[in-house]
Amino acid sequence: MSAIPQAFAQKTAELSDEVTRPFPSSRKIYVTGSRPDLRVPMREVTLTPTQTNAGIEENPPIMIYDTSGPYTDPTAHIDLLAGLADLRSPWIQERDDTELLDGPTSAFGRERQSDPKLAHLRFEHIRTPRRAKPGHNVTQMHYARAGIVTPEMEFVAIRENMRLDELRADPRYTKLLRQHRGHSFGASLPETITAEFVRDEIARGRAIIPANINHPELEPMIIGRNFRVKINTNIGNSAVTSGIEEEVEKMVWSARWGGDTLMDLSTGKNIHETREWILRNAPVPIGTVPIYQALEKVDGKPEELTWEMFRDTLIEQAEQGVDYFTIHAGVLLRYVPLTAERLTGIVSRGGSILAKWCLAHHKENFLYTHFGEICEIMKAYDVSFSLGDGLRPGSIADANDAAQFAELETLGELTKFAWEHDVQVMIEGPGHVPLQMIEENVTKELKDCYEAPFYTLGPLITDIAPAYDHITSGIGAANIGWYGTAMLCYVTPKEHLGLPDKQDVRDGIVTYKIAAHGADLAKGLPGAQIRDNALSKARFEFRWEDQFNLSLDPERAREFHDQTMPHESHKVAHFCSMCGPHFCSMKITQDVRDYALAHRLDDVEIALEAGMQEKASEFRKEGAQIYKPV
Amino acid sequence: MSAIPQAFAQKTAELSDEVTRPFPSSRKIYVTGSRPDLRVPMREVTLTPTQTNAGIEENPPIMIYDTSGPYTDPTAHIDLLAGLADLRSPWIQERDDTELLDGPTSAFGRERQSDPKLAHLRFEHIRTPRRAKPGHNVTQMHYARAGIVTPEMEFVAIRENMRLDELRADPRYTKLLRQHRGHSFGASLPETITAEFVRDEIARGRAIIPANINHPELEPMIIGRNFRVKINTNIGNSAVTSGIEEEVEKMVWSARWGGDTLMDLSTGKNIHETREWILRNAPVPIGTVPIYQALEKVDGKPEELTWEMFRDTLIEQAEQGVDYFTIHAGVLLRYVPLTAERLTGIVSRGGSILAKWCLAHHKENFLYTHFGEICEIMKAYDVSFSLGDGLRPGSIADANDAAQFAELETLGELTKFAWEHDVQVMIEGPGHVPLQMIEENVTKELKDCYEAPFYTLGPLITDIAPAYDHITSGIGAANIGWYGTAMLCYVTPKEHLGLPDKQDVRDGIVTYKIAAHGADLAKGLPGAQIRDNALSKARFEFRWEDQFNLSLDPERAREFHDQTMPHESHKVAHFCSMCGPHFCSMKITQDVRDYALAHRLDDVEIALEAGMQEKASEFRKEGAQIYKPV
Repeated sequence: MSAIPQAFAQKTAELSDEVTRPFPSSRKIYVTGSRPDLRVPMREVTLTPTQTNAGIEENPPIMIYDTSGPYTDPTAHIDLLAGLADLRSPWIQERDDTELLDGPTSAFGRERQSDPKLAHLRFEHIRTPRRAKPGHNVTQMHYARAGIVTPEMEFVAIRENMRLDELRADPRYTKLLRQHRGHSFGASLPETITAEFVRDEIARGRAIIPANINHPELEPMIIGRNFRVKINTNIGNSAVTSGIEEEVEKMVWSARWGGDTLMDLSTGKNIHETREWILRNAPVPIGTVPIYQALEKVDGKPEELTWEMFRDTLIEQAEQGVDYFTIHAGVLLRYVPLTAERLTGIVSRGGSILAKWCLAHHKENFLYTHFGEICEIMKAYDVSFSLGDGLRPGSIADANDAAQFAELETLGELTKFAWEHDVQVMIEGPGHVPLQMIEENVTKELKDCYEAPFYTLGPLITDIAPAYDHITSGIGAANIGWYGTAMLCYVTPKEHLGLPDKQDVRDGIVTYKIAAHGADLAKGLPGAQIRDNALSKARFEFRWEDQFNLSLDPERAREFHDQTMPHESHKVAHFCSMCGPHFCSMKITQDVRDYALAHRLDDVEIALEAGMQEKASEFRKEGAQIYKPV
Repeated sequence: MSAIPQAFAQKTAELSDEVTRPFPSSRKIYVTGSRPDLRVPMREVTLTPTQTNAGIEENPPIMIYDTSGPYTDPTAHIDLLAGLADLRSPWIQERDDTELLDGPTSAFGRERQSDPKLAHLRFEHIRTPRRAKPGHNVTQMHYARAGIVTPEMEFVAIRENMRLDELRADPRYTKLLRQHRGHSFGASLPETITAEFVRDEIARGRAIIPANINHPELEPMIIGRNFRVKINTNIGNSAVTSGIEEEVEKMVWSARWGGDTLMDLSTGKNIHETREWILRNAPVPIGTVPIYQALEKVDGKPEELTWEMFRDTLIEQAEQGVDYFTIHAGVLLRYVPLTAERLTGIVSRGGSILAKWCLAHHKENFLYTHFGEICEIMKAYDVSFSLGDGLRPGSIADANDAAQFAELETLGELTKFAWEHDVQVMIEGPGHVPLQMIEENVTKELKDCYEAPFYTLGPLITDIAPAYDHITSGIGAANIGWYGTAMLCYVTPKEHLGLPDKQDVRDGIVTYKIAAHGADLAKGLPGAQIRDNALSKARFEFRWEDQFNLSLDPERAREFHDQTMPHESHKVAHFCSMCGPHFCSMKITQDVRDYALAHRLDDVEIALEAGMQEKASEFRKEGAQIYKPV
């Protein structure tokens, strides 16, 4: 313990205070599956009753998909120095197809573990890595194709459902369950998600559960077009700024606000140690771009990269527990000149590294030529592919061009290849794309990559708003999610300008939760509208606290209300600052409704009972006067 | 002058300092039309040259559509106490179809003008109101239908073009003018906008120029589907908070950041005087909802509203110079019960007032029954209709329902009626609508309202993000703008929670500028992509200052960059904080490009000269090695 620097120990204490605070009127519940150690976390928001003229009407609690892990569970003991509990270890061990290694098998992993100079940075309780027994394949896809429903699959089925079947059977939810029909662009969203449906989607490659056997701390989640749209957040230090403590804090922060997965994109010093700290404390899947670290190992000179050291890096990270790797195997030598006349060339870091390597050696991309060997590593730990879009457009001018689409086609070939190894795959996408060209990206990805989950950055629909690129990209993200993207990679306000701080991360996440939820609603995801309905009912009934508590960011909603109406009494006021106490449209509407109910006239009742649409035009034709004197 | 409170005089001085500061590297230019007093303002952003291996390459200046009025012109003398210059007075007088009145003709206007208790609040230089001579119609639509191209029409034609013809003839802009083909959903966007095109669009009712003859200070702008998508901002005090000074400041602030029009939605005291201050200093069209003030006059009791006092309010405001009125004439008695079973009833303030009036009197909406008389007032001052959507949905649950669409159909009937009087019309729209149901709103509006310009609030695509509703609605706004909405009414982060402060206004505006510009790009508005291309080029070439200066919010972009990289030297650094100095994808890409150019190999040249798309697949088939040793 003495090896842990004092600064970090203090940070840990600070985290507990700031990040573990439960959301208001919320409690963490666990839905138990077919075995007692399969406990699926959800957040339940308790609401206040509605006071009507007729008496008190209960408002039932609302379930919220919860990515925050044990951090928001007041009964959980959080100690960043010890890491989270390893929930999945029994499931992994029971499968009896893995073995504990003596220690890291990568040269770099061994070197870092034995370097005394790193003792002060190192996570203390490093777990001995695990690997598939020789001849075994431990991917979720492999099990799925063998017809096995793993605990991970059952976990995500329960998690995706959010107790929807129970709510359907409960009359208190009947009105809240009203939802508009979606337009799904061909997605197949079942009324209820079964573990068997999950298995089938994974077997077909239409969804993935990123869950490395060396990351047993994670709460399984699924990425696929026929499930809730997910969001990824990026953090990472660089040579210029940011340290380990800050990155761990950002990870917990990201999970708190709703990040479903997280990529550690560090490019600075101590990448290995930072990653260990993040993984051991992460309830969400962690992704990386291994080529970033490989580049560090050759002092930033792409031409010095070799397959051997890259391979060592993959094993190093796989044994730490990274759940998915971005691999830019589609940046082929022959595509590089297609970018020369672009407005903004190659903007993907990975893409530019590999382009430079290809040109320097006059050789094909070594990730492409060694793709089979990479698959062997992936399946020994169940690391999922996130096939990188190294040639994604960096400006709307370059959107949907030959380079981008040529690479996408190659990613399709690689998907097929990976699936022959039962390795899970998702496909990365752009970038910068104007609104009218977004749908083509999804259509082409679904076709060329055989419906492998699409995972897109934004896209930004215009280039002219640096400092607001969470918004330029959030617009693109909502649309691309609607069309069929399975996971949206967030963008913060600092994109293009600097490294995000915690508030930027929060802004980016909430923006992307909006985009993802907007896409779910648009696709018609069953149950998606419950939260909207409950919040709007609270708003209409002036239940301010409930409105705050049901929102994506209860703290900021309350803070904004406080700025105009600071007094506690205002939180129960039947008016708001927009109109003031003497005039309020919502109050008037309630009067209208009371009036309509009080009069109970035939025409009104007819209008209400018959479908509204037809009746409205009928009234118009008749020109009838609805309200006759009582 | 002594009547002006000291606090306000100080505020004026403060405004000059804070709001009149020109944007960085920008200068106000004026393009003169067919007469010397027709000077159309634009903002020209000067860029730094690109330093290449081959030498210096000039980057030509970029034109930006400028709504900020004289406030950002350092040569203009700004005095809020005196108001802006009355640019349009000669044009109005020359038409010789109006007459100067002796003073306000409304009872309320006279009362307020002669009340000594209001002297300290009153704008000093009130202009005598003007009205159409008996038997005359002074609307832009009336002139347009008579085949007359007014200076206002010529002004907006020049303004919309943004010197595009000149740029097309200038080889420095050739690359910057590259643009993707749009998908316009039936909009007809000409390559060059002529004054005759403007006249024709106005004559057909597909566009409006809101320009009251009593608001000669405004710089004319056009609202129509075949022009740039515009944005409206709302300000207004209420009984709870905010005073005159704050509202005038917000108006100037709104124009500064790009608000094309502004609605004064005040509901508190001194509405009349606040409006005068705003109008006399407003370079943009001002809209109001007269029923709000009418309600004030009857102490907030809707049932006491009468046609006579409402008529007096219309005249009062028309003679002050309000450019468009929201009139909720489509809230018919028979539609009211259609809202009773809604989740959130009637959320429009105007809608709820009129619903209550209808029910209280068992009579049809007096705005509907007196619509012809309202038209007579509108055409005497050229006030445009903004036909209000009093039954718009206040939650996504209520989107596109019978009440909303029944009202929309009535707005269509009223549009036809107004057009018989040659009165300009736009149609207000929702509200809260999930993504998949937005397009239907536009399609129905275009059909039912005969392509009258659509003017929508948001719509918000989900209800669950109070404190982020600029974003939930910005997503909807970008989409509805793309489908054909002519003007987007902004929403600030404080929507549903409180009154916006200046920063909220800025956030709301920039978000809506993104949405409007995203829609322009998606529709394929000629020239829309120049700014994106110029900014992306600057970004790619590490011209940080140019990147900031071309952005929608140069100040915040710079501020964010400063947070990570505070030193001035970083603004010329060929790296950024995201990757650090040793590794930069943009730098690598430039190396790739240099390499490709240096080698000038046949295959590369073939690839570049032929269409990329075909060549890419050809290369794939051949599996050829592109780069041979020199």
